[in-house]
Amino acid sequence: MTNNSASSSHVFDQAIALTPDGDTFTGHPSADYQNMVGPFGGITAAKVLNAILIHPEAEGSPVSITVNFLGPIKNEAVTLAPKLTRNNRSNQHWSVELIQGDEIQCTALIVLAKRMDTFESEEITFPDAPAADTLAELNSDQLPPAWVNQYDMRFVYGNMLTMDQPEVPSESLLWMADKPARKLDFQSITAICDAFFPRLFLRTRKLSPAGTVTFTVYFHVNSEELAQQESTRVLGHARATKFSGNYFDQRGEIWGEDKTLLATTSQLVYYKD
Amino acid sequence: MTNNSASSSHVFDQAIALTPDGDTFTGHPSADYQNMVGPFGGITAAKVLNAILIHPEAEGSPVSITVNFLGPIKNEAVTLAPKLTRNNRSNQHWSVELIQGDEIQCTALIVLAKRMDTFESEEITFPDAPAADTLAELNSDQLPPAWVNQYDMRFVYGNMLTMDQPEVPSESLLWMADKPARKLDFQSITAICDAFFPRLFLRTRKLSPAGTVTFTVYFHVNSEELAQQESTRVLGHARATKFSGNYFDQRGEIWGEDKTLLATTSQLVYYKD
Repeated sequence: MTNNSASSSHVFDQAIALTPDGDTFTGHPSADYQNMVGPFGGITAAKVLNAILIHPEAEGSPVSITVNFLGPIKNEAVTLAPKLTRNNRSNQHWSVELIQGDEIQCTALIVLAKRMDTFESEEITFPDAPAADTLAELNSDQLPPAWVNQYDMRFVYGNMLTMDQPEVPSESLLWMADKPARKLDFQSITAICDAFFPRLFLRTRKLSPAGTVTFTVYFHVNSEELAQQESTRVLGHARATKFSGNYFDQRGEIWGEDKTLLATTSQLVYYKD
Repeated sequence: MTNNSASSSHVFDQAIALTPDGDTFTGHPSADYQNMVGPFGGITAAKVLNAILIHPEAEGSPVSITVNFLGPIKNEAVTLAPKLTRNNRSNQHWSVELIQGDEIQCTALIVLAKRMDTFESEEITFPDAPAADTLAELNSDQLPPAWVNQYDMRFVYGNMLTMDQPEVPSESLLWMADKPARKLDFQSITAICDAFFPRLFLRTRKLSPAGTVTFTVYFHVNSEELAQQESTRVLGHARATKFSGNYFDQRGEIWGEDKTLLATTSQLVYYKD
């Protein structure tokens, strides 16, 4: 399923592995990160970001990524076609298409930047959460999709598998880490931003059909700051704002264990009930 | 500046007016919506959305738009090049490029959908706000950019022109309306989502250089629900999460006067200090 160079590496690295092919890259959906229909969106978004981060013309660290999911990705090779739409002095804009055969399956916009020291302030505060090792790990045997097995999830509240209905019914707070532990990077944080279960499941307590149509991550650390994260675990916080007319949105924040805000994320999700 | 058909219409309609030109559309930056450097991003995003909403192949109402701003738009004609990347049974994915000469100035992803009745729930509550007519209108003479004159803004709190520092320093709550009053539509809501002044100005009390690099709106009403809005005014709520390394993000919600959540929005903004 993956190219040989990644065969001995972490399951996540295998899943996002790409082979250069002229101006494009080739990859493969990973059986380890399958979802109900097609691959887990987070791993696809991480692969799209990876195509830019390993690109020879890439400069700086990512500050934003938006991926739109056009339809279910089939279990066959994917081609990633990146286009450098603007090379500014301090940032780069990229467009990416993920293609299977003659179908575009994903469209994406990515911004990289050479970040400089400026006025800094975190306007929201680290949520009150007990240490991860005091909490039970989610038993992924209770959930069918393969991708859930690749994460260590420890819920403070908002676990859809239990009846501990949180005070705000579509809100979750949980520790998340790659399994086995893996040094955090922008690719893994991108995937983790999509690893909040759909807020619909939590809100209605039903596993209804649902699929992300657009997914955005803003990164709040540069490469050096991210490399300083010693913990491989993050605290994730997510909630919905509105369910209406087949679509709901969810917003989230990803915090380092040292209380640094690493990323904010939002997505719009199609659903049926 | 605009085509003749729009010359007698609202200043907003003149600003987003487009002329079909084969597979593309042609428009012009509006002097009425100029910002410090180039046009107000909200009017550009509204124009990008307009290119899809007036497109003969468009079906359904918009559910999401992301616009990336690659560089300052010059005061000359713009070409909008839309591409229908996927036509699903219940939704459409579009990519759009806004071009001047041989430069791409904006890239955008838009999703339209035929929305159906489903389980509905608003997970956040309408903010406590006094009626708009009890509040003073912002005196736009105090702010140089032309676009500010096109909005009636009435601050509950978080007005950067006064010293009423809000409890959360980067947060604002305000009533907003087109001036003169104009029936709300998806284009005008898109522009309004960008009409929150940069949170940096509020947080630092300085007008530092700042420009949006990526801007996203999720719509929580369909065309019929939006048409039912009798008021031409909305309540906007915005806050930043983090300022760091030349970039900060801001998130917001746009509520109808009848307390319906119309849209949620986020953006990432480049800044210097």
